[in-house]
Amino acid sequence: MTKVHNFYAGPAIIPQEAIDGAIEGLKNFKNMGLSVVEISHRTPEWEETMEQAEQIIRDLFNIGDEYAIAFMQGGASAQFTLIPLNLLPEGRKAAYTKTGTWAGNAIKEAKFYGEIDVVGSSEDKNFSYIPKGYTIPSDAAYFHITTNNTIFGTQVHELPACPVPLVADMSSDIFSRPIDLKRYDLIYAGAQKNMGIAGVTLVIIKKELLGKSGRKIPTIFDYRTHIDKQSMFNTPPVFAIYVLYLTLKWLKANGGVEAAYERNKAKSAALYAEIDRNPLFEGTTTVEDRSMMNLNFIMKDKSLEKGFLEFAKANHCVGLEGHRSIGGFRASLYNALPLESVKVLVGIMKEFELMAKSGKIQVAAGATV
Amino acid sequence: MTKVHNFYAGPAIIPQEAIDGAIEGLKNFKNMGLSVVEISHRTPEWEETMEQAEQIIRDLFNIGDEYAIAFMQGGASAQFTLIPLNLLPEGRKAAYTKTGTWAGNAIKEAKFYGEIDVVGSSEDKNFSYIPKGYTIPSDAAYFHITTNNTIFGTQVHELPACPVPLVADMSSDIFSRPIDLKRYDLIYAGAQKNMGIAGVTLVIIKKELLGKSGRKIPTIFDYRTHIDKQSMFNTPPVFAIYVLYLTLKWLKANGGVEAAYERNKAKSAALYAEIDRNPLFEGTTTVEDRSMMNLNFIMKDKSLEKGFLEFAKANHCVGLEGHRSIGGFRASLYNALPLESVKVLVGIMKEFELMAKSGKIQVAAGATV
Repeated sequence: MTKVHNFYAGPAIIPQEAIDGAIEGLKNFKNMGLSVVEISHRTPEWEETMEQAEQIIRDLFNIGDEYAIAFMQGGASAQFTLIPLNLLPEGRKAAYTKTGTWAGNAIKEAKFYGEIDVVGSSEDKNFSYIPKGYTIPSDAAYFHITTNNTIFGTQVHELPACPVPLVADMSSDIFSRPIDLKRYDLIYAGAQKNMGIAGVTLVIIKKELLGKSGRKIPTIFDYRTHIDKQSMFNTPPVFAIYVLYLTLKWLKANGGVEAAYERNKAKSAALYAEIDRNPLFEGTTTVEDRSMMNLNFIMKDKSLEKGFLEFAKANHCVGLEGHRSIGGFRASLYNALPLESVKVLVGIMKEFELMAKSGKIQVAAGATV
Repeated sequence: MTKVHNFYAGPAIIPQEAIDGAIEGLKNFKNMGLSVVEISHRTPEWEETMEQAEQIIRDLFNIGDEYAIAFMQGGASAQFTLIPLNLLPEGRKAAYTKTGTWAGNAIKEAKFYGEIDVVGSSEDKNFSYIPKGYTIPSDAAYFHITTNNTIFGTQVHELPACPVPLVADMSSDIFSRPIDLKRYDLIYAGAQKNMGIAGVTLVIIKKELLGKSGRKIPTIFDYRTHIDKQSMFNTPPVFAIYVLYLTLKWLKANGGVEAAYERNKAKSAALYAEIDRNPLFEGTTTVEDRSMMNLNFIMKDKSLEKGFLEFAKANHCVGLEGHRSIGGFRASLYNALPLESVKVLVGIMKEFELMAKSGKIQVAAGATV
């Protein structure tokens, strides 16, 4: 089978080892003679895997007992509601930054529960940068950020000083780099970008944060329910957790987040270098806020974009379409994407440039090649 | 590999064809050269599968356009909250029957949103029967039933006359028999018992029911959000939907719900006949309310139960432990379980009886063999 280079933004590339392990588990889980998806989640065999998944997460981010871990359902979109429900007392306010579509959705849902102070926004320039220098009010119940903006290709590279609990949506860059865990109070992330398949959401939460909103919370939407029952209050999304476990096991075996960071720096540097060098292309975000995960770029001559996409596809590079809300291109370089795929893409960009120079592709007047 | 007979109550047995199809999809989905779990859910290839999954559901229950279909996350436990949030106006009441643990949980969560009138309950006899002859108040916003009680092994075989919209938790018997669809206004079911793996919940809802609670509903918890966006408001649980699709495709190819009903009647009749005939065993529920899906039974001599379970396991019958809240045994005979497995279990019960008669097993005084 021809190797396909997978730049999808999510669901996204999974390490082959995780896919192979998932197939083994589907065939015969732990020699039970049954598939991992057709046994009770109360079997010791499955409970052991749940515990191992939690332990690997703790190992990767060096998470101590002061934090609880939960595997939940509903994606980041469900967390947008659960966070204020669990953390924002009636009559109090929370602070958010508006750095993209998902951050905007988080703000919209939080407004159901109280006043939301948008302390920083990059909406004025179509979310092409990360706002800085804002002030987080010390009377906010918490401060919410999106560490990586999948659609717009920006990433928070330096955390602001934060006088209140910090809540972070890490859906598209979790485990891509080391973090200073103690600065965070709640981290959440859908699995389908950087740690597995769609259908499970990881929540890492400082225990002392819980039970303080004073609200009546439906049982299933109370973080304590899931934490108290080790994410087995009801049937967990077994297969999604299994692939998450296998993906993070692969990550740990390959040097953990420190090594992933080095690989991600090398991959993104190689592609940004070509975006900046190649006269046909340009980046869409402020250089200092560029994401290592989602690299957005356009062509100076818009009329060439369709042709480039087709050329990339013909060369087995898929998932490069920019999000439908902004167009252009987006190359997602998640942990599982090998440097080799980036090199192939860079090669294609160079080849397209040569084709344009040699007149095989018509470049509009005014665009310099 | 030795054939294992899988009586788990959920997650539960999946048709081998569905597992094989899932493995193929994990390896290479629709010849894309990529796994079904690592492509965007916005690709035409995936969107086509979503549409096919919905169409098969419509075909199986003969569902017209007056009903919408949604694939959601969070299991039945999330629906316990979403139902009153979407259907119960402030100041109105809803009617429920309390027929088991899950029905009890549904009532508990609904009480967050208004007065709940428990019109029928079998709690007085440990949920061993289905209450009947109760009156459903005509001013209730809706009436909620659990059609099959997984833990206690009872099933509703005749719907009551219902003057208000009928909401049914069909998690453990959906697609096991034909239904008179027009009598239902909302049907929901977690997939992991009778139609796939854990991680997706099917909701079938009459469109005219929507938008009437008058409540402010967080976007992600509003049925209209999921219906308007064809269950793609956010990333759906792709793999769980894929296995649901493959499982229902298998069901349809094997005669649909009518043929499944005949098979389920034959399977459950064979096992109940042995429970009733074999002097070592007895059923735990009222005969007329017996479930075709989950068959609960105990031994007259409790001291033999551990030995029987071990004997069954040694003969490759697994998942027979009764739920931890009631003990004894529970054999779940979902659609995917072949009659052959029931015959093996019946054979083991007969063999155990012979062993007891021949003195190989010590039966307590007073128990007749």
